[in-house]
Amino acid sequence: MNEKMVYRFGPKLSDGDKGMKSLLGGKGSNLAEMSSIGLPVPPGFTITTKVCAWYNENERAWPKNLQSEVDEGIEHIESVMGSAFGDPANPLLVSVRSGAAISMPGMMDTVLNLGINDAVVEGIAAKAGNARFAYDAYRRFIDMFGDVVMGVSHDHFEHAIDGLKREKGVATDLELSGDDLKELVVRYKKIYRDETGHMFPDDPREQLKLAVNAVFNSWNSPRAQKYRTINRITGLLGTAVNVQAMVYGNMGETSGTGVCFTRNPSTGEHELYGEFLVNAQGEDVVAGIRTPEHISDMAKHFPEPYKELLETAGKLERHYKNMQDIEFTIQEGKLFMLQTRNGKRTGAAAVKVAVDLVREGLVEKEKAVGELVEPGHLDQLLHPQFKNAAGYKDRVLSVGLPASPGAAVGQVVFSADDAEEWRAAGKKVILVRIETSPEDVGGMDAAEGILTSRGGMTSHAAVVARGWGKPCVAGCGGIVIDYKTRSMSNGTATIKEGDWISINGTTGEVVEGAEDLIDADLSGDFDTFMQWVDEFRPIKVRTNADTPEDSKKAVELGAEGIGLCRTEHMFFEGDRITSMRAMILAADEKQRRHALAELLPYQKSDFLGIFRAMAGKPVTIRLLDPPLHEFLPHDEHGQKEMADEMDVSVDVIQAKIAQLEETNPMLGHRGCRLGITYPEITEMQARAIVEAAVELSQEGVSVHPEIMVPLAGTVAEFENQKKIIKATAEKVFEEKGARVDYLVGTMIEIPRAALTADLIAKEAEFFSFGTNDLTQMTFGYSRDDAGKFLPHYVENKILPDDPFQVLDREGVGQLVRMGVDKGRAARPGLKVGICGEHGGEPSSVEFCYLVGMDYVSCSPFRVPIARLAAAQAHIKSQVKEAVAV
Amino acid sequence: MNEKMVYRFGPKLSDGDKGMKSLLGGKGSNLAEMSSIGLPVPPGFTITTKVCAWYNENERAWPKNLQSEVDEGIEHIESVMGSAFGDPANPLLVSVRSGAAISMPGMMDTVLNLGINDAVVEGIAAKAGNARFAYDAYRRFIDMFGDVVMGVSHDHFEHAIDGLKREKGVATDLELSGDDLKELVVRYKKIYRDETGHMFPDDPREQLKLAVNAVFNSWNSPRAQKYRTINRITGLLGTAVNVQAMVYGNMGETSGTGVCFTRNPSTGEHELYGEFLVNAQGEDVVAGIRTPEHISDMAKHFPEPYKELLETAGKLERHYKNMQDIEFTIQEGKLFMLQTRNGKRTGAAAVKVAVDLVREGLVEKEKAVGELVEPGHLDQLLHPQFKNAAGYKDRVLSVGLPASPGAAVGQVVFSADDAEEWRAAGKKVILVRIETSPEDVGGMDAAEGILTSRGGMTSHAAVVARGWGKPCVAGCGGIVIDYKTRSMSNGTATIKEGDWISINGTTGEVVEGAEDLIDADLSGDFDTFMQWVDEFRPIKVRTNADTPEDSKKAVELGAEGIGLCRTEHMFFEGDRITSMRAMILAADEKQRRHALAELLPYQKSDFLGIFRAMAGKPVTIRLLDPPLHEFLPHDEHGQKEMADEMDVSVDVIQAKIAQLEETNPMLGHRGCRLGITYPEITEMQARAIVEAAVELSQEGVSVHPEIMVPLAGTVAEFENQKKIIKATAEKVFEEKGARVDYLVGTMIEIPRAALTADLIAKEAEFFSFGTNDLTQMTFGYSRDDAGKFLPHYVENKILPDDPFQVLDREGVGQLVRMGVDKGRAARPGLKVGICGEHGGEPSSVEFCYLVGMDYVSCSPFRVPIARLAAAQAHIKSQVKEAVAV
Repeated sequence: MNEKMVYRFGPKLSDGDKGMKSLLGGKGSNLAEMSSIGLPVPPGFTITTKVCAWYNENERAWPKNLQSEVDEGIEHIESVMGSAFGDPANPLLVSVRSGAAISMPGMMDTVLNLGINDAVVEGIAAKAGNARFAYDAYRRFIDMFGDVVMGVSHDHFEHAIDGLKREKGVATDLELSGDDLKELVVRYKKIYRDETGHMFPDDPREQLKLAVNAVFNSWNSPRAQKYRTINRITGLLGTAVNVQAMVYGNMGETSGTGVCFTRNPSTGEHELYGEFLVNAQGEDVVAGIRTPEHISDMAKHFPEPYKELLETAGKLERHYKNMQDIEFTIQEGKLFMLQTRNGKRTGAAAVKVAVDLVREGLVEKEKAVGELVEPGHLDQLLHPQFKNAAGYKDRVLSVGLPASPGAAVGQVVFSADDAEEWRAAGKKVILVRIETSPEDVGGMDAAEGILTSRGGMTSHAAVVARGWGKPCVAGCGGIVIDYKTRSMSNGTATIKEGDWISINGTTGEVVEGAEDLIDADLSGDFDTFMQWVDEFRPIKVRTNADTPEDSKKAVELGAEGIGLCRTEHMFFEGDRITSMRAMILAADEKQRRHALAELLPYQKSDFLGIFRAMAGKPVTIRLLDPPLHEFLPHDEHGQKEMADEMDVSVDVIQAKIAQLEETNPMLGHRGCRLGITYPEITEMQARAIVEAAVELSQEGVSVHPEIMVPLAGTVAEFENQKKIIKATAEKVFEEKGARVDYLVGTMIEIPRAALTADLIAKEAEFFSFGTNDLTQMTFGYSRDDAGKFLPHYVENKILPDDPFQVLDREGVGQLVRMGVDKGRAARPGLKVGICGEHGGEPSSVEFCYLVGMDYVSCSPFRVPIARLAAAQAHIKSQVKEAVAV
Repeated sequence: MNEKMVYRFGPKLSDGDKGMKSLLGGKGSNLAEMSSIGLPVPPGFTITTKVCAWYNENERAWPKNLQSEVDEGIEHIESVMGSAFGDPANPLLVSVRSGAAISMPGMMDTVLNLGINDAVVEGIAAKAGNARFAYDAYRRFIDMFGDVVMGVSHDHFEHAIDGLKREKGVATDLELSGDDLKELVVRYKKIYRDETGHMFPDDPREQLKLAVNAVFNSWNSPRAQKYRTINRITGLLGTAVNVQAMVYGNMGETSGTGVCFTRNPSTGEHELYGEFLVNAQGEDVVAGIRTPEHISDMAKHFPEPYKELLETAGKLERHYKNMQDIEFTIQEGKLFMLQTRNGKRTGAAAVKVAVDLVREGLVEKEKAVGELVEPGHLDQLLHPQFKNAAGYKDRVLSVGLPASPGAAVGQVVFSADDAEEWRAAGKKVILVRIETSPEDVGGMDAAEGILTSRGGMTSHAAVVARGWGKPCVAGCGGIVIDYKTRSMSNGTATIKEGDWISINGTTGEVVEGAEDLIDADLSGDFDTFMQWVDEFRPIKVRTNADTPEDSKKAVELGAEGIGLCRTEHMFFEGDRITSMRAMILAADEKQRRHALAELLPYQKSDFLGIFRAMAGKPVTIRLLDPPLHEFLPHDEHGQKEMADEMDVSVDVIQAKIAQLEETNPMLGHRGCRLGITYPEITEMQARAIVEAAVELSQEGVSVHPEIMVPLAGTVAEFENQKKIIKATAEKVFEEKGARVDYLVGTMIEIPRAALTADLIAKEAEFFSFGTNDLTQMTFGYSRDDAGKFLPHYVENKILPDDPFQVLDREGVGQLVRMGVDKGRAARPGLKVGICGEHGGEPSSVEFCYLVGMDYVSCSPFRVPIARLAAAQAHIKSQVKEAVAV
């Protein structure tokens, strides 16, 4: 490597700045930035992410000049701190921490107190006048070093300290004396030697080198990889390593440590929000082992540092123009800032913070819309709440910390593995753990919600759950969990594995049984924010809705039309299915027409309701799509019922089912293939649509029907259906003595349709990309069957994402782009949209914007998300263009 | 229309020439050409195909100047013949015939003797001194005009003539006197009036206009459309209309008519081959109503005209450089050439004629290869023959005309509809008809072979069957067919519907029972011809073969390697299926590896056999492709057997089957998805291939394995499999102490693979397009299910062809071209081939050539066809290039 590998920082010097995130990692660039704006940052240096990449690609060797650059870094720290690495008289201790460009809380390994050995510990004791503190640091260091660097289980050390406490007859670590801890160091070293086969390393520089390597190695640990997979983090080189002078929150009652947010990360309220512990190191807070105090109580314990912290918080927000998540330590009354970063927050908080920051004049609307709220945040706002707001109170088992808002209902499981298995079996689960660790992320992801009995608002469970917008109640000490019997108890009631509970992450309540849920109420800030969103949104957002009710809900959430109304759903309700089945059983066209005539009024009344709900807005109606066998009963009981109802023998029904059976129904007799072989179906549907449109139009309602032919793969198929639709419409216009404007277009969901979009666009008046089917056929994956290999593919990085969730730009995207470009070339100004489920997924919405679609369409509750994603795509591309200029 | 609509021809004048086929039709351009080289063609004129198109697009109206141009044409004929249209003193009669650019025998309607009325008939009688001839022409004209132009069933007229014959107590038409025929004219006119409600038109010009319109209308008749569909004829404007002076073969014993080929169309022998009838009109020969005499007997009846015919045949062959099919008439000792065209011929004849014409110096090899043999012709050469060459002689029911060579076996059906239905039900049928008509073409297509009891070598059945290369015995008068009882008899034995018979189209024999068939013997000319083919063939032809036997056969037929060896076929035989099932039932990787170890020696021995058979040639081996459930028994009996064999309960088997069940197996857990989730399968297969290759190579056999990963859709999938294959190969090389060269490549059969071919080609060493699956996914058609709509699509022109038969250039072809281009851009010189069934279909082979593939691969018996198709594609493109220069 021929470039600078080590960047120094500290109160008096900074080699880097916040723009170097990809090189120095989030933590490193923040430390550099904080240093440069004069915050009290302990001095240190950052080894770049490129070194990590080089190390991992070169059989875990150090690049040539790394050692000398590290030595210079150590000299820098020594000169600022006035102490020396390994010098018993005036010892320097350092922390070694990971820090990638994207924050991955808890996933990377950290070593504290590095630099202690048998000589140094005595120097610390002498200097601090506190042997207990020195040996506590020493024993913590051996524990952490053994665990993180050498893979010696932390349990061994815990076992040793528990043993000593029993011997000494004390309950807490704080009751152990300096001599006790000195004895503990001896025992820890023996454990280290027994487990590793090596003496504990005496040389601080050897300690440092081993620790740096451990951080590098941890980049590729299975749990780090799994976190990146779940969070879709790709494209990073590695982690940086931050080596920084230790400052001590555990030098007695005038010392302490804490983490806090500059605003409330649950609600967005403008108040310092966090926790602190007196006489403790930082990891005590994060690990959730001791339950910390609320940050506002700091004013009593540490009045001056608290005042300074408030000032610093303001300074940081003004500087970073975002809510910050801060780690700090108070060493003997003096405040040190250890870390700051943009704070993770709930959806409600994200919206409130974004709106408040604009109102406070700290940021522009464009930044608020473009960066301060993630599309997923809005999803949280739309999360369900308990339906009965008070009625469950007598079933509350206990109340914990409201760690991540929203309500969740599920069956109790007590391990992450069970959560994943039960979920895979189609069950809804609540994951209940004493506390969670990074190994549990898979199960947390699988669960509807998370309940822990230990840990605070910044514990692992709370931080991860908030990041995902998943309901979480943390630190619920009123509940005792017994992994062995797979049960939990509040002292009176016992809940066993598989029992239903409900949790309210907004209040911290844990409720016995399955509560009914209702949709969230959207706050005033939400409306303000969404108004701003729409100012930056260049493309329309429609909804997929099949009923007047869904249509109304979608309009409330901002839908500007219907992008997909599936007519087949209308054939299942009540008596309709009987007529539908008569149609399918029909021996000839005449019988079929008779049955269709019975269906006509049902279809028409549905369209009347939907057109009315969407008055003034376009409504895209897809003609019958699924294969006919989907409308027939598949069990013998249902077949008998049908036979009785239709007054035919069961044999007739079964023969028809056998006749309609398909090897690959996805690729079978469905979509416009039905309308082509049974033109009378298309006729009936066209008539229902046009009659409804004309009648409403005669009442003065503004209707804009767009009739959509499904599954066309050739222009000839489309022409065939268009001809029938047009002829039927003309007949209706004549009968009614009035006309309405309408469009006839097609789904583009067959690869061949995208490939021949130029031909199809000559006939079709609009395109709507059906990316569900298009993904199935472009990949050759049956969505119903892909469960056998798709999870394996995503886990093993054969695919970056499930292509049914995130539109595959590389493959499917090529066809979409081709479809849009060829279509527009043949018919300039062709209206183009998407109605696959990707229409509500942010990255896919961005892609739709980039290829120039006129609108996206998604389910009603995804509409706000699509609106924001579209605005962000636009803002992002404007920024890129500006950079390019 | 602003262009010339009528082209005149005749002995002294020709407005057109043979280059104007698309405008004048095949017949019209030939008449023009024959006129221009001085052959005795009766004068006439041709109305262009564009007029037909205009007429059919403009509500059956005539373009403005058509009438005056037609009048000029009539004047031309009158001046050459020295007679006048409608002039009783010197009457001109004309024929009106259709003639499209591509010959469609029997499909278009013809009117003869047009111009007769009550006055004219007397004139003819006076002029010819033969009232019988005049009234015979008149009654024929009324019959034909009534039938063709006005849709009066021919049966009515037949009924009338039969009635008259009974009244007169005579057996044949010839025994009816002139007065009888005069009476018949009266009866025919009454029939005409009764059936149409109109008087028979007196005015010859009105007759002409109605007849011309009838020809135009017949272009879109259902039977014409069906013929075009079956024969894949597209892109024509319409039919031309040829109006020509009548000459009479029925003016007594010095007159006659005939059709003949300049060479034997069954064998290719250089001899005049055909039939003639004394005192008859041309339709008597073609219709097969009277059984004609062999052309060589003409020397006796008509020595001079016969000599002239022989000379003319030679002149025509030298002029057209191809074997000709001639229609002629002798009017009172004078020969008139009515028509000439390239003669339809059998495969054997095509090859012999092509080789002979080159040897005779008439054509160059390039024309012989490029035009004189159709790829389908070779298919006939490869048709089966009876296995027991003599043993069936005592079961011969009768002997008819050897109308189209090759042997066929099937169950007897007596109608074309039955033939189609039985075929659709999976049965093999022989269609048995008294005679066939264009209405029967669907059933003829469905049948294995055709047997008629009436008609000659140029009857409808014979001509159509030869064109298709389908075995046919025609005019088998020894058999009496009874449609009512659905049986036929040779007087001793009765064969009923559903009974098995065998026919030998090469000998004319009809045999009771189902004979065993063997493959054809390829003649010496075949080898010569195929050598020439290979001189013009730029791309290789490989074969799809899974066994050493198939491999050997394919090499005999010219295969230059294996393009697709399907390994799964090896898992079904004998004990192998047990090991395969054990592998599928395996609870874990260890058990799976154990079962795979049992399969290894089987796989290896197969590869040893195939490599040996293909020594020196590349062998592409596809790794396991089908979903695992295909290897399990689907009926309860089989499941019980399997349970016993494997010593587990049936429940275990059924549970596994249920677990493996898929909604859309086409798009499920198959192809490399199996090899990725069960890498040990890929390992075993790679080991079997490489071990076999190394061992044979150590024996001195030249082996060129190409290991092919199926169903890759992403480069990551391919990389995953390639890594396993490479690692396994290295292990084997180390174990064996020797290496072999091998390639690792992939199928391109998923649309996404074609779209991302540039990425995949960076890793893959070759591509093989699997156009079966690529067609399924690009169209979204399941081949297993498309039967419900695909025939409807082809019939109704929604698709030009079944895309599983003929590669869809417009859609699927785009992906293929993209795959080749992107692949080669990323890896210059990338080896590319096709292994879908399209690899043996001529139009698809041409496409593969045009996109620059290195080879095509097809089943062994299609190899010669692919070789010829490839050479023709090359010659065709060279011609195009030459024209372009």
